[in-house]
Amino acid sequence: MVNKEKMKDVQDSPAAQEEELHRVGIRDFKLPLLVADRANDTQPVVATANFGVNLDKNQRGAHLSRFVELAEDYRRSRFTLHSVGEFLRDMRERLESTNAYARFDFDYFMPKDSPLSEKAALVDFNCGFGGLLVEDKVNIWIRTEVPVTSLCPCSKSNSEGGAHNQRARVKTRAVIDGMVWLEEMIELIENSGSSQVYALLKREDEAYLTNEAYENPKFVEDIVRDLSASLKEHEQIKDFVAECVSYESIHNHNAYAATRHGTFWDRLEEF
Amino acid sequence: MVNKEKMKDVQDSPAAQEEELHRVGIRDFKLPLLVADRANDTQPVVATANFGVNLDKNQRGAHLSRFVELAEDYRRSRFTLHSVGEFLRDMRERLESTNAYARFDFDYFMPKDSPLSEKAALVDFNCGFGGLLVEDKVNIWIRTEVPVTSLCPCSKSNSEGGAHNQRARVKTRAVIDGMVWLEEMIELIENSGSSQVYALLKREDEAYLTNEAYENPKFVEDIVRDLSASLKEHEQIKDFVAECVSYESIHNHNAYAATRHGTFWDRLEEF
Amino acid sequence: MVNKEKMKDVQDSPAAQEEELHRVGIRDFKLPLLVADRANDTQPVVATANFGVNLDKNQRGAHLSRFVELAEDYRRSRFTLHSVGEFLRDMRERLESTNAYARFDFDYFMPKDSPLSEKAALVDFNCGFGGLLVEDKVNIWIRTEVPVTSLCPCSKSNSEGGAHNQRARVKTRAVIDGMVWLEEMIELIENSGSSQVYALLKREDEAYLTNEAYENPKFVEDIVRDLSASLKEHEQIKDFVAECVSYESIHNHNAYAATRHGTFWDRLEEF
Amino acid sequence: MVNKEKMKDVQDSPAAQEEELHRVGIRDFKLPLLVADRANDTQPVVATANFGVNLDKNQRGAHLSRFVELAEDYRRSRFTLHSVGEFLRDMRERLESTNAYARFDFDYFMPKDSPLSEKAALVDFNCGFGGLLVEDKVNIWIRTEVPVTSLCPCSKSNSEGGAHNQRARVKTRAVIDGMVWLEEMIELIENSGSSQVYALLKREDEAYLTNEAYENPKFVEDIVRDLSASLKEHEQIKDFVAECVSYESIHNHNAYAATRHGTFWDRLEEF
Repeated sequence: MVNKEKMKDVQDSPAAQEEELHRVGIRDFKLPLLVADRANDTQPVVATANFGVNLDKNQRGAHLSRFVELAEDYRRSRFTLHSVGEFLRDMRERLESTNAYARFDFDYFMPKDSPLSEKAALVDFNCGFGGLLVEDKVNIWIRTEVPVTSLCPCSKSNSEGGAHNQRARVKTRAVIDGMVWLEEMIELIENSGSSQVYALLKREDEAYLTNEAYENPKFVEDIVRDLSASLKEHEQIKDFVAECVSYESIHNHNAYAATRHGTFWDRLEEF
Repeated sequence: MVNKEKMKDVQDSPAAQEEELHRVGIRDFKLPLLVADRANDTQPVVATANFGVNLDKNQRGAHLSRFVELAEDYRRSRFTLHSVGEFLRDMRERLESTNAYARFDFDYFMPKDSPLSEKAALVDFNCGFGGLLVEDKVNIWIRTEVPVTSLCPCSKSNSEGGAHNQRARVKTRAVIDGMVWLEEMIELIENSGSSQVYALLKREDEAYLTNEAYENPKFVEDIVRDLSASLKEHEQIKDFVAECVSYESIHNHNAYAATRHGTFWDRLEEF
Repeated sequence: MVNKEKMKDVQDSPAAQEEELHRVGIRDFKLPLLVADRANDTQPVVATANFGVNLDKNQRGAHLSRFVELAEDYRRSRFTLHSVGEFLRDMRERLESTNAYARFDFDYFMPKDSPLSEKAALVDFNCGFGGLLVEDKVNIWIRTEVPVTSLCPCSKSNSEGGAHNQRARVKTRAVIDGMVWLEEMIELIENSGSSQVYALLKREDEAYLTNEAYENPKFVEDIVRDLSASLKEHEQIKDFVAECVSYESIHNHNAYAATRHGTFWDRLEEF
Repeated sequence: MVNKEKMKDVQDSPAAQEEELHRVGIRDFKLPLLVADRANDTQPVVATANFGVNLDKNQRGAHLSRFVELAEDYRRSRFTLHSVGEFLRDMRERLESTNAYARFDFDYFMPKDSPLSEKAALVDFNCGFGGLLVEDKVNIWIRTEVPVTSLCPCSKSNSEGGAHNQRARVKTRAVIDGMVWLEEMIELIENSGSSQVYALLKREDEAYLTNEAYENPKFVEDIVRDLSASLKEHEQIKDFVAECVSYESIHNHNAYAATRHGTFWDRLEEF
């Protein structure tokens, strides 16, 4: 019934409207990856990926199945920040484009010892690699979301008992020149909050962290500024965006602060 | 081209597999509603609705467009808990079924004055009406999600400085016999936390609430037990489920407690 | 217990790290709005809003409660694209900043008559207004997500029976100079798919639309190019991004195409 | 500062309101698991887990950190349906409760060859294991979400060109007595749609599947009834719920059908 010889390559026909498209691809594509892990060589993750290329004004459609073939070829090897660059160049060749874009998002685990009882348990961090290849220029970035505790300086200053505090989420995207471990980014960011977050805490750990946060009150603005100072000092980190969303315990909406460095993300409103 | 006279009613043809289906309908259907408001007669909301009926073993398909026609007929009138019963009986008649199910979820707003500065602002609560008509029996319920602050008793007891606290979400579903305002349910639930949550707070209000929560430490278990005691005392409230999810400020996962009364939801795992 | 006179304005104290922040504000704030409606003067919607300002390097924190007061003052009046500009200028004044940003997202309803049976029912469109005021320059935009049917040209060309088709979502953000109705944007976008989407369809309407889509096969690339041509012709529409996500019926991932015009969103990767 | 000896076990103190709670635990806890894989011994997945126990009326709180310790102990071993039972008994012992509940949800991958070109690629399926131990009785279940294509019989019957079709999602929960592979459940469900869904399809495969779906039109009701017949025949499958949600290409809402067998989930409205 299906005759392969007679089939038309409709994608290769001319476009009705001649316009170059800056991005054609697939979205919300799930795949397992073996991400380079500082402690264990690789960590198996489940990534959600978006891939895209630019499309010449004379070509009607991109051959989307080639993105899936490409991903199949990479998912078994150790995946690093460096792999993103190779992936983009390979994508550009297979899709016959001039530009290429890829984004991989995944939950990444890192063991943390509780501060006093020293019991280890995994904490999850939503992370990602991304890259954009435009003609001769490639930018590769790391994306990280790190939960921290934020404790309100104003509430502490004006209250007799305690201070409101809450889980906050610190999000960064940083263009990397060279090599940076995900673990390195996470540790750098974890120190920006009033205190860190753990999966496993015994009574004494909980007391320790409660005290620590109370001694270290921070607005979202403080968190973002402190983080920004650290990111700027890091040699491999180039342009970045850093933001903090704090799930205020006294409101049903969230507090927010963001800063950026360089021009790469200068129009990115929120992420 | 389209000839209406010749069209087959494929839904009315016999089913290949003879099996009664307990639920056939539409999901994720959005519609505006005018919900009865205690203070302002009606409040316009945007509901997401699921509708369904049982389907006789001899009928291949339900006529799904009738659900949309039904919703169109109700969306302009004042919608109360009582309307859900009428809606279900109407649905059963139009769909020629014996059972009927409807669920309406929406954000509902209630003005709250900040505790000291007494400035009014709207707080949003995710609410809903639902109902199930099975042969001669109808159950109508209210669903409410109310944000509160929870402050950890263990952290307060063992720490020198403050106590970890966070936003928590108290969720209930309660079968109602008679009439209960959404506002009444919300107020009843708001009192179960360590302190309430507001949209607009000035410095003095923030200090007041910080102190209040600190004087009133509660585990998720305490919140659910206190709420359960209040719900049981209410004459119009019959079977219910009450749960509390607390977005712990020291963890990246949530604490959870739930209780139920009566048998209506005795197998509902989580909601 | 709470002594208002003695309270410190901690936000107004100097920042430990002197860095101007490009955005400080609140996120995920819900409020009801009365949006200007072409047919009915106003339509009540439930918006999720993000507000932000830049923060001087010498100021530790922004006074976030002022955003809530601002929103309270606008929610009762007829809200138009023009209101966004006023809102931004007002925000800048109250927050004593030089820049201001606002984004309002909401489900908006528009009645549509089914194509043959001519029965009216509401269709929901996820829409939004947004704006950015940077010193002397203000940009105001409309955001629209419109569901359409996409029918695959390659599948039609190579198959004997039918062609795979699916729901697709066409998303645009367009900077507006002057006045454009939400309804105008929606109608313009609805015509870019293989066929339109309705809430209420009778048998003859379903057949009509099935035929229409089959006669009008389109890749996501075709949809975006046709839409781009229409957007460019519109005098009030300036810079824009247009994208189409198609929930492929033969895959568990989505096809995607995007184009942009002008430089306003030239680094926005996906939205 | 933190003195472990003096710390109070606040959870072990008596409850202010004496009420047994049917469920206390943690939710949205992420952990990596090594799930038993039919082809490759184990598959690393990233699970989101909910754990809970009942709480005696005299005890104020559960010791939530024990859930995290428990999960840490299981995550390195091969995790099967059988492991869920062991996990529940272990949980009951560590938490000193009479009942125990666990739910693990994860994306699971299975390679599929495209139907004609026979190219292999991974397809993702959202799956899960769950279990409930109530005194002497344990029920263990598998949860599966399988994407399929649904092609509308009414649209085919009444249209000249093609038929509307779309991605649909078939969801089941089935209590298992004995052993069933995730792969076995997935394959059984995949056959219930108009055609199957793949990650990688070349032109000839797309044509083949387009034809196949066109020859096999199915309402959501047909899909659920056919699946129900298969599930009932399977010896290891006991009580179940099966539902299909179809993302209609001609609407912005979804069609839905559900059936259930046995009494275990007889009040579960939707999932």
